[in-house]
Amino acid sequence: MVINSTLAGVIREARLHEEIGEIYSMSAGIQGLLDEEIYDLRRQPPDLVESLQRTPGSALSTCRYRVKPDEYERILQILKAHDIRYFLYIGGNDSADTSAQIARVVEADGYEMRVIGLPKTIDNDLPHTNHCPGYGSVARYIAISTMEAGADIRSQRSFTPIDFIETMGRDTGWIAAAAALGKRREADPPHLVYVPERPVRLEELLEDVQGVYNRYGYAVVVVSEGLRNEEGHTLVESSGALEVDAFGHRQRGGVGEYLARMAMERLGIKARAEKPGVLQRATISLASRVDIQEAVMLGAAGVRYALQGISGQLVILVREPGPQYSCRPGLVPLEQAANGVKRLPDEFMDYENHLPTQQFHEYAMPLIGDPLPQFALLREARVEKLLPPR
Amino acid sequence: MVINSTLAGVIREARLHEEIGEIYSMSAGIQGLLDEEIYDLRRQPPDLVESLQRTPGSALSTCRYRVKPDEYERILQILKAHDIRYFLYIGGNDSADTSAQIARVVEADGYEMRVIGLPKTIDNDLPHTNHCPGYGSVARYIAISTMEAGADIRSQRSFTPIDFIETMGRDTGWIAAAAALGKRREADPPHLVYVPERPVRLEELLEDVQGVYNRYGYAVVVVSEGLRNEEGHTLVESSGALEVDAFGHRQRGGVGEYLARMAMERLGIKARAEKPGVLQRATISLASRVDIQEAVMLGAAGVRYALQGISGQLVILVREPGPQYSCRPGLVPLEQAANGVKRLPDEFMDYENHLPTQQFHEYAMPLIGDPLPQFALLREARVEKLLPPR
Repeated sequence: MVINSTLAGVIREARLHEEIGEIYSMSAGIQGLLDEEIYDLRRQPPDLVESLQRTPGSALSTCRYRVKPDEYERILQILKAHDIRYFLYIGGNDSADTSAQIARVVEADGYEMRVIGLPKTIDNDLPHTNHCPGYGSVARYIAISTMEAGADIRSQRSFTPIDFIETMGRDTGWIAAAAALGKRREADPPHLVYVPERPVRLEELLEDVQGVYNRYGYAVVVVSEGLRNEEGHTLVESSGALEVDAFGHRQRGGVGEYLARMAMERLGIKARAEKPGVLQRATISLASRVDIQEAVMLGAAGVRYALQGISGQLVILVREPGPQYSCRPGLVPLEQAANGVKRLPDEFMDYENHLPTQQFHEYAMPLIGDPLPQFALLREARVEKLLPPR
Repeated sequence: MVINSTLAGVIREARLHEEIGEIYSMSAGIQGLLDEEIYDLRRQPPDLVESLQRTPGSALSTCRYRVKPDEYERILQILKAHDIRYFLYIGGNDSADTSAQIARVVEADGYEMRVIGLPKTIDNDLPHTNHCPGYGSVARYIAISTMEAGADIRSQRSFTPIDFIETMGRDTGWIAAAAALGKRREADPPHLVYVPERPVRLEELLEDVQGVYNRYGYAVVVVSEGLRNEEGHTLVESSGALEVDAFGHRQRGGVGEYLARMAMERLGIKARAEKPGVLQRATISLASRVDIQEAVMLGAAGVRYALQGISGQLVILVREPGPQYSCRPGLVPLEQAANGVKRLPDEFMDYENHLPTQQFHEYAMPLIGDPLPQFALLREARVEKLLPPR
């Protein structure tokens, strides 16, 4: 939802500057621009900026569209026809790439227009920026949801003691690692976190789960959707479960459900799985205040950079050194930002114990904003037994 | 989580009455009592009552245990050994049944002990009570999550326009119906809600989804996990998908994932599914204030009823007539409460349009507490196109 907060920051800042005439948006990103689907952001409800910061999804809609080389000419024509002089584009790697291409095309043409990229991806996999707007909120959601689900599973451990929570993250484990931010004691859930950065073997994973179950009587296990085995296949693919439907349909679906089934069949312990899916990235109530503030800040910074004549750059978050958390806007060339995926660094994961490290906690904790909840935990104040055991 | 709120209400009220000596709890319900696993609730942190109201799961743990006829004698011995004179048991139909049996056993024996049942089930399927503590919170969670996911799916409709949200509810559609509480306009998600009260045909369901997609360009569809076809089988069972794993494993798993696959294969439209699972019943941040207050109120009422000498009764919520929402505690014999499942009444669902009715809204809206959020919706303030279409 913080993509809307960045938009709010852009609109608010743009309204402050007289040199900016119209404020337009495209519908569904670059796809909408190609269709000349342009909206007037000055003709909107007066509380728009305020309400955008509490709105999930993308108010402008999004696309997954790779612009074909011969389409940039049309983009240029449309930009010129509407006298667009500042072009700000919010998104992840692909959006940075599209923005970089547009910057190149307008420069080659000599058309005077500033191109600024604004980062947003819950996956947190953009290089160069300390983190991406969007990540703090999904991290907060996953941290709290895992605490809540963990307390629930713990209380029903007498009948369904194993739970797999499947998080987003096809290539990186940033979101899965955040599930452990609410863990205070070794016995607390989550007990195991598996990320795509390291291949896993099903047998070893199940052994680890059995070990946790033996120790605590239950196990809460967080898995990235993109979990892979040593051959580079996702676990569900490699199980052969992809080709086995009665109608010959290919079998999709979650690594969480798959592992729950494996735990039941191979360990003989009742297991279940949760897959919050888009809920994790659409949360309002569990959004991080820090994340929203930073998203607004970057949007506003993007407008100011463009007005200063800067172009072909992505606005990033630069973290100030020192114990007090603080981030300021910075810049990196769009071409650089478009390349590469930022994976969890080795020092952020303890792959022996399958849990994120203290370094990861220090990195991620400030991003999620307000403190995490504390739950009641009854003291084991046992009353003496008076009868022989049954 | 409101099971802990009811416990908080019991503890707070019990502390007020001098005639009550020790305050004990069982670990994991009746199973813990049979094992004489009893905890002393007076020897707990001083903020226990307060923190219980923000704690998910069940702080005392739960069980799914059907007491065998010859075990009631041991229960009686344990109750007598610890001089337990008031017995309060929180739960759904099965717990009411267990409490009813215990009431019968102590009465037959002449042992003076009051037995009071306290209702809690997120499924809302207990008869006699207007609603069950727990339902208001899960209803609030599902209503808001569907609004959030709906806004997210709407904004990405250009590439994944169909979403199935799978809710809890094996036999009743109370939770699924609540997904529509945030729907304000016909075009708003959710567009379709399917409940176990009426059998569905896969082909008809897919036709409905296609119709919504044709109309709005996307479709958000809520399905109860227990959705059944006309032969009484769940949709996943009836697909044959249960026997088809490569290892010969039985295929579990969600009706949501299954329908997403069917939509992609039969309609050729990209679809996905979300399954919040236990997150929906473990939510703190989306819990309903009204729900928590009522849960505390019933716990306290249970203690007062017991002190008045009432026994063998379940405390229920009686809704006062009139436009102003208000519920007070009432009583119903435990035997009656233990029998039957309260399904969605016909007037709560419009099975032609697959959406809950206004009557359902009036019933459920007050239970979810604070008003639902409002999202920003951009006005279609289009800028005139200046170029020929591509």
